[in-house]
Amino acid sequence: MFWSKYFIPTSKEIPSGAKIPSHQLMLRAGMIKQESAGIYSWLPLGLKVLKKIENIVREEQELAGAIEILMPTLQSSDLWVESGRYDGYGDEMLRITDRHDANLLYGPTNEEQVTEIFRTYIKSYKNLPLNLFHIQWKFRDEIRPRFGLLRGREFLMKDAYSFDLNEKDSRISYNKMFVSYMSIFERLGIKAIPVVADSGPIGGNISHEFSIITKTGETEIYYDKRIAHIDISSMPLSSDRDLEVIVDEYTKLYSATDDKHDKNIYNSQVPEEFKGKGKAIEVGHIFSFGTKYSEPMKAFINDENGKNVPVFMGSYGVGVSRLVAAIIESSFDDDGIVWPKSVTPFEVGIINLGHSDKECIKVSSQIKSDLENNGLEVLLDDRDESIGKKYADMDLIGLPYQIIIGPRDLKEEKIEIKDRANKSKESIDLKSVVKLLTSKF
Amino acid sequence: MFWSKYFIPTSKEIPSGAKIPSHQLMLRAGMIKQESAGIYSWLPLGLKVLKKIENIVREEQELAGAIEILMPTLQSSDLWVESGRYDGYGDEMLRITDRHDANLLYGPTNEEQVTEIFRTYIKSYKNLPLNLFHIQWKFRDEIRPRFGLLRGREFLMKDAYSFDLNEKDSRISYNKMFVSYMSIFERLGIKAIPVVADSGPIGGNISHEFSIITKTGETEIYYDKRIAHIDISSMPLSSDRDLEVIVDEYTKLYSATDDKHDKNIYNSQVPEEFKGKGKAIEVGHIFSFGTKYSEPMKAFINDENGKNVPVFMGSYGVGVSRLVAAIIESSFDDDGIVWPKSVTPFEVGIINLGHSDKECIKVSSQIKSDLENNGLEVLLDDRDESIGKKYADMDLIGLPYQIIIGPRDLKEEKIEIKDRANKSKESIDLKSVVKLLTSKF
Repeated sequence: MFWSKYFIPTSKEIPSGAKIPSHQLMLRAGMIKQESAGIYSWLPLGLKVLKKIENIVREEQELAGAIEILMPTLQSSDLWVESGRYDGYGDEMLRITDRHDANLLYGPTNEEQVTEIFRTYIKSYKNLPLNLFHIQWKFRDEIRPRFGLLRGREFLMKDAYSFDLNEKDSRISYNKMFVSYMSIFERLGIKAIPVVADSGPIGGNISHEFSIITKTGETEIYYDKRIAHIDISSMPLSSDRDLEVIVDEYTKLYSATDDKHDKNIYNSQVPEEFKGKGKAIEVGHIFSFGTKYSEPMKAFINDENGKNVPVFMGSYGVGVSRLVAAIIESSFDDDGIVWPKSVTPFEVGIINLGHSDKECIKVSSQIKSDLENNGLEVLLDDRDESIGKKYADMDLIGLPYQIIIGPRDLKEEKIEIKDRANKSKESIDLKSVVKLLTSKF
Repeated sequence: MFWSKYFIPTSKEIPSGAKIPSHQLMLRAGMIKQESAGIYSWLPLGLKVLKKIENIVREEQELAGAIEILMPTLQSSDLWVESGRYDGYGDEMLRITDRHDANLLYGPTNEEQVTEIFRTYIKSYKNLPLNLFHIQWKFRDEIRPRFGLLRGREFLMKDAYSFDLNEKDSRISYNKMFVSYMSIFERLGIKAIPVVADSGPIGGNISHEFSIITKTGETEIYYDKRIAHIDISSMPLSSDRDLEVIVDEYTKLYSATDDKHDKNIYNSQVPEEFKGKGKAIEVGHIFSFGTKYSEPMKAFINDENGKNVPVFMGSYGVGVSRLVAAIIESSFDDDGIVWPKSVTPFEVGIINLGHSDKECIKVSSQIKSDLENNGLEVLLDDRDESIGKKYADMDLIGLPYQIIIGPRDLKEEKIEIKDRANKSKESIDLKSVVKLLTSKF
């Protein structure tokens, strides 16, 4: 992609009202634009990251056996009256009246809707287990939207829902999602800490939050740093067996939010060098709530003995748009964003210092095509801007590698490669650039 | 994919209230489920088709130089007050009040929102031309939602918006979108007829609708059948030059909606054998409206002489969810849907007649893997159902090719392949099945 033909409205100014790094950087890098309180447009660079995260989440959920559907953004209030949550959900639910005075609402979550789908079609234990997920925009009318995407109102969420014959099977489904979540976060380049959680308005008896430690988190957690050392990619995953042994690897290590923190257990279980404490951003939340919705909404199935029983359910949420911000909060420096390779909007940025130098223009375009033909996404800054602005903008948008092409270097058949994360620069032969960069991905 | 592990709730019954073939077939094939009037959930099979259409639209729009963004579903009423459309839009606009009594609305279209994005960042003619598109859920509160996805309320639309310095450049952008649309419809396997259109509530001076002829269309059009003979894939497309000569290929041939039909011109311009007349479903609509929004909303740019002038705009819509239904309306038979290859949810379906025959099970799985390893998407019906139901369901969901595997054929190393469109069956050697089917895509 040529920068001059793209749309990345960067800015040097720190936007007023943006208090945390991710919010400032997303605005400055031209990734998002605020439209109303807590409601954003996604500009091209932001949308590319959002879609990469969405695809990783989708792939891992499908690997775990979940099946993708898509429920609408607007729901009928009837379902929520049935489940008993309509009145209790409070002001965060955006209630809507249509032209015929029917009561609709902008879905803040989809337990009711998916239970209605299940009860319409599934009548027998033979069709279980079933796990349905969707990735859809949701709305929660936060009283004070702030921190950009971390506490916005319209947000993109992946939510999965498991259906099982009994509590034991339901736990197997829960474990699968737990492990799938750790794989998702691993691929996104962030270290998530699972913490036992309250189930809040979703309800249920088992629940875990997945949080990452950053300077700007809203809650504080205490944890055993060895959690971050567990390498999920080395685990023998399979969607056909109970993954409890893997879940136990995580849950046997201490973690707790500050309101549930037990100093004595923490001190006795966690060696001094592994004691972790920090502010946390929640990026996922899973719940096992048994028959909380299936009983009132009559989602019953026939079991092996022909007995009609309520189905056991769980729900599993990942904040897809929130993750864009969370990843930035855990990976930036004074110059801008530092994208993990898996979600970067482009893998390589090219800065051409010789804007009117024919050889520089030719070589820049050639390297761009060569890298693209090798499957990399490349952004070539061909704008008629000062070199200082090009350097600053490229650092700001945070692509993992930069290629700097200048007339002097080119005379010696050299170009410079900059590693965005550690800021190291290396002068290399023009001939080896494609091979070198391709090998990094 | 194994059918038994997937979620395709098919049904023999014609659903009450579903009056047209696409609506009946989508419900019967387990593609969608109605949630409220004009609001649907997309079940796995439907979602797969929706995403394939979405991707074709995206690819073609990007080829034409359009850049993808994503605007939110909810918009502030302020922008619509600025443009002057807020009061006039009428009851089809879903108006919403949030907890702080701010007026929001569920976007029925995005001219205002995208103009606000443009005016925030673009100040100079040097950044033009620019074309921004998004693919997002929209809502129009139809007084009488009907015909399934053809006149639903929550629907997925691709809308693009062009920005140019003057009317002449704006026409170049319009032509690009016109040609891009013809390429989209060609790839989707449907023959669209461009018809000069009224611009309605969007406004403007040039406008074309793109319609396909089916038995269930809502309006009638008269057209020259030679329009459908133009092969857009043979046209030398390039996003860098004016495509007017290609647009003219289409527009020089007669087409008109019945309210604008001119019998004399029709009779004099269209030879008898090319006279076409039929009911039409609109699948796309493009508009060139100059400064209708940029003037009141003050989206001004500096021209070459430093003069501040309003930007010239156009908008270009394709009904992505509507296309799922429109494609079915133009491609079905008594047994069910007949998917064009480009959007079929799976390319091949396998029916195993020997549900408990070890050899049949082995061969079915093997062929499935072999085809998948060759890049095809395969659905293997491994359910414990009657052979009659398997045949009927496979015809109903309309995959282009079926492989029928039975114990008797297998003894002779044979299997049967059925072409869904023409219903022809062919017995072929087991060994050649992968090569044969791969060659069809």
